[in-house]
Amino acid sequence: MLEQLKQQVLEANLDLPRHNLVVFTWGNVSAVDRESGLMVIKPSGVNYGAMTQDDMVVVNVLTGDVVEGSKRPSSDTDTHRALYQAWPQIGGIVHTHSRHATIWAQSGRDIPAWGTTHADDFYGAVPCTRQMHTSEIQGRYEWETGQVIIETFRERQLDPLAIPAVLIHSHGPFCWGKTADDAVHSAVVLEEVAYMGIYSQQLSPELPAMQPSLLDRHYLRKHGSNATYGQKK
Amino acid sequence: MLEQLKQQVLEANLDLPRHNLVVFTWGNVSAVDRESGLMVIKPSGVNYGAMTQDDMVVVNVLTGDVVEGSKRPSSDTDTHRALYQAWPQIGGIVHTHSRHATIWAQSGRDIPAWGTTHADDFYGAVPCTRQMHTSEIQGRYEWETGQVIIETFRERQLDPLAIPAVLIHSHGPFCWGKTADDAVHSAVVLEEVAYMGIYSQQLSPELPAMQPSLLDRHYLRKHGSNATYGQKK
Amino acid sequence: MLEQLKQQVLEANLDLPRHNLVVFTWGNVSAVDRESGLMVIKPSGVNYGAMTQDDMVVVNVLTGDVVEGSKRPSSDTDTHRALYQAWPQIGGIVHTHSRHATIWAQSGRDIPAWGTTHADDFYGAVPCTRQMHTSEIQGRYEWETGQVIIETFRERQLDPLAIPAVLIHSHGPFCWGKTADDAVHSAVVLEEVAYMGIYSQQLSPELPAMQPSLLDRHYLRKHGSNATYGQKK
Amino acid sequence: MLEQLKQQVLEANLDLPRHNLVVFTWGNVSAVDRESGLMVIKPSGVNYGAMTQDDMVVVNVLTGDVVEGSKRPSSDTDTHRALYQAWPQIGGIVHTHSRHATIWAQSGRDIPAWGTTHADDFYGAVPCTRQMHTSEIQGRYEWETGQVIIETFRERQLDPLAIPAVLIHSHGPFCWGKTADDAVHSAVVLEEVAYMGIYSQQLSPELPAMQPSLLDRHYLRKHGSNATYGQKK
Repeated sequence: MLEQLKQQVLEANLDLPRHNLVVFTWGNVSAVDRESGLMVIKPSGVNYGAMTQDDMVVVNVLTGDVVEGSKRPSSDTDTHRALYQAWPQIGGIVHTHSRHATIWAQSGRDIPAWGTTHADDFYGAVPCTRQMHTSEIQGRYEWETGQVIIETFRERQLDPLAIPAVLIHSHGPFCWGKTADDAVHSAVVLEEVAYMGIYSQQLSPELPAMQPSLLDRHYLRKHGSNATYGQKK
Repeated sequence: MLEQLKQQVLEANLDLPRHNLVVFTWGNVSAVDRESGLMVIKPSGVNYGAMTQDDMVVVNVLTGDVVEGSKRPSSDTDTHRALYQAWPQIGGIVHTHSRHATIWAQSGRDIPAWGTTHADDFYGAVPCTRQMHTSEIQGRYEWETGQVIIETFRERQLDPLAIPAVLIHSHGPFCWGKTADDAVHSAVVLEEVAYMGIYSQQLSPELPAMQPSLLDRHYLRKHGSNATYGQKK
Repeated sequence: MLEQLKQQVLEANLDLPRHNLVVFTWGNVSAVDRESGLMVIKPSGVNYGAMTQDDMVVVNVLTGDVVEGSKRPSSDTDTHRALYQAWPQIGGIVHTHSRHATIWAQSGRDIPAWGTTHADDFYGAVPCTRQMHTSEIQGRYEWETGQVIIETFRERQLDPLAIPAVLIHSHGPFCWGKTADDAVHSAVVLEEVAYMGIYSQQLSPELPAMQPSLLDRHYLRKHGSNATYGQKK
Repeated sequence: MLEQLKQQVLEANLDLPRHNLVVFTWGNVSAVDRESGLMVIKPSGVNYGAMTQDDMVVVNVLTGDVVEGSKRPSSDTDTHRALYQAWPQIGGIVHTHSRHATIWAQSGRDIPAWGTTHADDFYGAVPCTRQMHTSEIQGRYEWETGQVIIETFRERQLDPLAIPAVLIHSHGPFCWGKTADDAVHSAVVLEEVAYMGIYSQQLSPELPAMQPSLLDRHYLRKHGSNATYGQKK
């Protein structure tokens, strides 16, 4: 069942330690099969070193039922489900506690677009959510985490594919993309810009956001129908 | 004698360089066998690369006598003994000079609970002890180090298993847990939150502690009888 | 065609991940053959791990035409061309988004000469360009990037071989040298001094540039006809 | 000739990249044979990867003459000679541009004794020299560098074996010890305390030096006739 997607999700999960984005079993990747309405996600608390394709858990996006797999799915499964339900354009999601993105999340601050490294993959600041309400935290916490992400993008009128990442206040980043691979890519770039942003502000405490024309140029060089970066496909 | 415990203590010691928590021979791990009242601890000043199970030293927790082993036990043995005597609920102890935890210790500051990475393993701020008195330093220094840790937890009414780490003022961290492995786990997480805390405060100089409800939610998701993280056991 | 130069450019490109200067496919190296007026450059968006000598693209420096190669050349090709046209004394160029050089670029600041590590390879501050005008960004952007670099060196009366690096405002570094190898060398040293500069200023916020006599001594010890560093050639 | 010492010097030089203290060919280690008045030192500008025991250069400490070896000795040879002449108690010297020690050197600041990691190996602040005079820089620069180090220790009445490191203003660290190995040890510890010091001050901007009694306790636990650390010898 969904063997190819399981393979992709396994590989994407294993990419997290390869890119130094996770410690221990922290972090998880999922991908969705839109036709069947099923998602494949990492099991909860399993070591990356021992993880196999068969450990991946298949979950019904709508109901949350485990459809296949002998292990419990990631404890963040309901956050993934919420995002897949709200945003039909995305196909893969990554959650990590990568050091520098988490630092911005803990500080409760957006990561401004401060250079072309940012603009190449994020079409504007990466938003940090509001703090969650106690009722949300004490209720269906993981589901509500997803709702707060969705609210953030709706209220700020952001396109999830143009800004494929968010910082959960006092927590850490979620990233996504058309595929699990794209989501990992976003997680890596987010960590780079999070790192560089900390020191860019240290060197220039009043640093304004980059020029909108430069943001446009770089983002559109890599994305959309007029993209010129990379090889023709 | 205690061969299984020696093996665990050896492995836990070797985990320290694997997690980049030590330089040279710095750092040490011990574990206790409550039934016999004996602890196994790393020898003093021996290279991790050359260390074997037979190098582990068996020490009487109550008297401090070396019961087995041809090498001197870690110079911090008396600190370990003090903690095992005071806290019957712990089974393993780790001491390192890991960079970022040591930075907080040198600064004489607690590490506030600033995010869910912290809350997943520490149920509140990680305390920094008071400076030690000259009489303590010039007396039974390592034993007194243990007493200052115990005093810190008693005066602040902290549960050592809920906050399994401390920062010794001007020195570095001690961590512990039910087993040597748990203690290493705490040491790794402590280093993560110590790193992230430095920069979280840099980005938000007046950063308050995280919401108590969020601290509760994350700590209790991973600990206690209602924990939901990981696989069923 | 230019097989030896292709081999050098391939090796120089592979040096970028070896020196931790790039993430994913970011970064590119080229070298020029002055006799034929042709340059060899990395293809756009190709993984370092899979790159071969045959993937290198041969481009006419004057016209920008691809003369050999089945892949698209780096999207930054026109910046390379502009520099080769303006500066006949250089033979190789490197572009990266290396973390700390990029931080200075994002901050819009020159890297002052703050020590002998800097002076050994850069004969003065590494300049940051002005911001590019919207017309430049929306026009022939990569070509104009090269023009802004050239303008910076002309207006400040800098010798490109004495200061073989620049920071593009809000973007990142370009480095160069007599060969592709020299350019990579500059990129590595630039990253070192960029890293150290951030913290040197943190420790001494009003830090002045180093003494001119010390800058002279170190630069001239390694460069020019009276150099004494290394082995006789 | 001095084959055993050459082997030690080679190994100590190779330890520098193993401990991430050098980039390219930067850094050098020497050791002295007091009986013959000869020192063995790394050749200038030779890659660590290709270095062999035969590349080591034998130099007369008093005259500076190369006594054996086909390669030029390190460009810093005269600094090593000056220290060996002034301090008969030392046997090995290391020079690096290790990142964090160099940051303190560039900032022109001593590294205060801020914790037991420091106290275990340095019996007080690691001093930074004054800036060198232009006449010194333009004269016998490397020799004068040694003289400024010696002046620093003489004027501050420091014991070179109790504080086996110095920061050359605007340059970087020199470290030493009874052997080349001890000197490398000092270089590694210096880099640790340099790193931790930057952030300790960031967290506590007015941080005072550690308690003298704690400095004593830790230094004397590892050094001198009453040392208790490590195994009996």
